[in-house]
Amino acid sequence: MRRSAEQTNDLILDAAYGLFRRQGFLRVSMDQIAERANLAKRTLYQRFRSKDDLIAATLAHASKLALVRLESIKLPTNRDAMIDSLFAQIADWAATPRWSGAGFTRVVVELADLRGHPARGIARQHKTAVEAWYTRRLALAKVSSPRKRAREIILLTEGAMMLMLIHGDRSYAEAAARAAKRLACMS
Amino acid sequence: MRRSAEQTNDLILDAAYGLFRRQGFLRVSMDQIAERANLAKRTLYQRFRSKDDLIAATLAHASKLALVRLESIKLPTNRDAMIDSLFAQIADWAATPRWSGAGFTRVVVELADLRGHPARGIARQHKTAVEAWYTRRLALAKVSSPRKRAREIILLTEGAMMLMLIHGDRSYAEAAARAAKRLACMS
Repeated sequence: MRRSAEQTNDLILDAAYGLFRRQGFLRVSMDQIAERANLAKRTLYQRFRSKDDLIAATLAHASKLALVRLESIKLPTNRDAMIDSLFAQIADWAATPRWSGAGFTRVVVELADLRGHPARGIARQHKTAVEAWYTRRLALAKVSSPRKRAREIILLTEGAMMLMLIHGDRSYAEAAARAAKRLACMS
Repeated sequence: MRRSAEQTNDLILDAAYGLFRRQGFLRVSMDQIAERANLAKRTLYQRFRSKDDLIAATLAHASKLALVRLESIKLPTNRDAMIDSLFAQIADWAATPRWSGAGFTRVVVELADLRGHPARGIARQHKTAVEAWYTRRLALAKVSSPRKRAREIILLTEGAMMLMLIHGDRSYAEAAARAAKRLACMS
């Protein structure tokens, strides 16, 4: 049974994504990815010139899926309930076994000294799209200055995720939710 | 001329710290560190059983120095001016050439899947000490509920550093400072 080129690509991207998310982008080798996808390493290199190209393609794929998922997330329409729900979902995510932080944040940190790496641009676009998504959801909840409030929320969610990764303590997400609600209520 | 054991250790820690901060903790090898310290790799392994032990020792050393430096930082005593100064210093730091984020944050992200790594505990202690330092400085500025305000500020500084690393845009630190000031003024 022959696979289409697209199916082979998806196989590689799924295998790579699973490994990168578990062990980080730097530590995973092309050998491991080939083994997990059950393909010859030669096949990987036919489709992706380098591990760096594969990292970028994996992130572009993951971003597309994540943004579709965000659009379908159900949130309360009441402002404070919406903010509580956003931070509770992040805290629940952080409490899953072997959680290792947000993938796009991780890739930027792992490649912190490589500003021109193609993955950095994809991470930037992704975070911009997430901030725009916050803005739209806050506007739907009739929050005033939704763009400013969205920026505060993304600052607080990035901070909460990092501090939950450091301390393993969901009270950081709870404090972030309280701060976001107070900032929204003053505006 | 013979070096004392302590001088040799400092040589190794300085060389390791410079390389880790520049290239990340995962990518740097013991060979590179030995070369930079101008020592035989055997000498490194006599003092540090593994690269993981050396990462932990480097962070413990860096934490001690950073906490001493924090104590000596001059900040305005007026609350809003103090908050502005804190975030402006972070934004200036983020604007230095080849800035690659906060070192303790970076090590936690690079070792995100290795919860038991000795460096994780040191990073945790360091961030706890930084939060306590914020609390003391806010208390000196007569801010009420300094512990709660310190937690908001550490959430906002972690978020701002991450978003500045992603976007290369200091307006994230400015938005974080405005949010911190509004939260402090309401309290």
